[in-house]
Amino acid sequence: KSIVSEATFSHKGSVKHVTIPATTLIYDLEMLLHNGMGSDVTFVVGPECERIPAHKAILIARCPVPILTDETMHLREINVPDFRPDYFRVLLHFIYTDKIEEGMLDNMADELLSAAQRFGLTRLKALCEDQLTRSLTVENVCDILAIAIDDEADQLKETSCSFICRFSKEVSKTEGFHRLTITHPEMISQLFERVSSVSERKWRDKSFAPWNVLGASKQEHKKRREKPNEFTKWVESTGAWVERFKFND
Amino acid sequence: KSIVSEATFSHKGSVKHVTIPATTLIYDLEMLLHNGMGSDVTFVVGPECERIPAHKAILIARCPVPILTDETMHLREINVPDFRPDYFRVLLHFIYTDKIEEGMLDNMADELLSAAQRFGLTRLKALCEDQLTRSLTVENVCDILAIAIDDEADQLKETSCSFICRFSKEVSKTEGFHRLTITHPEMISQLFERVSSVSERKWRDKSFAPWNVLGASKQEHKKRREKPNEFTKWVESTGAWVERFKFND
Repeated sequence: KSIVSEATFSHKGSVKHVTIPATTLIYDLEMLLHNGMGSDVTFVVGPECERIPAHKAILIARCPVPILTDETMHLREINVPDFRPDYFRVLLHFIYTDKIEEGMLDNMADELLSAAQRFGLTRLKALCEDQLTRSLTVENVCDILAIAIDDEADQLKETSCSFICRFSKEVSKTEGFHRLTITHPEMISQLFERVSSVSERKWRDKSFAPWNVLGASKQEHKKRREKPNEFTKWVESTGAWVERFKFND
Repeated sequence: KSIVSEATFSHKGSVKHVTIPATTLIYDLEMLLHNGMGSDVTFVVGPECERIPAHKAILIARCPVPILTDETMHLREINVPDFRPDYFRVLLHFIYTDKIEEGMLDNMADELLSAAQRFGLTRLKALCEDQLTRSLTVENVCDILAIAIDDEADQLKETSCSFICRFSKEVSKTEGFHRLTITHPEMISQLFERVSSVSERKWRDKSFAPWNVLGASKQEHKKRREKPNEFTKWVESTGAWVERFKFND
């Protein structure tokens, strides 16, 4: 009897384990969308009425704000004329798999951000915000801020605002900034307030003072202590460069 | 102009990235199964006709061997009298999420292995095989081997066979072994062949010879070389212990 229990014990560590295949859930749902098997709804998308089959169960499971409303739930065809088919396909792919194919967001993050907001897809929304954040430039930041405001994309809004504050001098000269003053005037006043307070705080903080950033010599620092007025004059003489560094943390 | 490009450059590394929420795909599908929203088929399970709602799209996406056949695809109710409801729920949970809740397999791995084989769910099959492999004992190994043969579970079959060969002396005395000789006589002859060849190979391999395992002294090893007959007698005198170590690698 003791041999058996000893034997069983000695086996425990030595039996080789079973190889378990990786999960195929995402792939299976991707295939379902791709082959449209068992589809119970067809989206008729864009001005050219492209037909894209889908499955109500997946749409119900995945969209907190239903794509299918009480009125459209029983329909077998749903018209979506205001959507480009290629955008709609990427949206559906996200709904089925919770992911976006590599590079797909490059040119449609702004459009998909709207769709994500509309259907409550917070993860897709964040992915779009992330893509737009990475593509911020002085020229486009104001247009992207407008999108962020309209789609309640708070992370993107915050990043855009801080980008604008940092490069306020350059941004204020762009056409986007001009457009923003017309479409979102309340935002301009908020930005003005923020730039002013940042500016003031920075000047108070010695480590951000332009004479540090610009590498004032020891002699000039000495001058600062002994003849503050002359030092101020030196600072003023640096002109635009001081402006440049005002918001550059 | 150069300031703008420099500014844009200096921003690249410093803009904080957007926080992206983790995927909720599995959770969303779990909830869909749980609340049954938009269900388009109901399984009527077990002798007490428990009603379990489901979604054809998910079943189609996830089962290589369709649960829904051409005959049952259009039905809104499908009878599954030969399934226990608790087992069927775990099966559906796997189909929706590709995972099994902790501990759920402990008592139903053998039943679910059959279902997994029936519907081509290779991952579930491997999870069941793994669970059964971990629960192998001298007493149950023959019954588990019978299950492995019936459900074409090759990994489990191989592990069970090698377990039986290793503990052949003990296993051959169990009731499960007796059952196996009746239900799968062809397996017994395969096992016999395998035990014989293992045994022979082990005895040929000096490092597995029982006099090494049993710690024969240098003197005894010397005896072996000089008086082989006497050494054989010593080996024989160890009796059951030699048997014990025959298949113990």
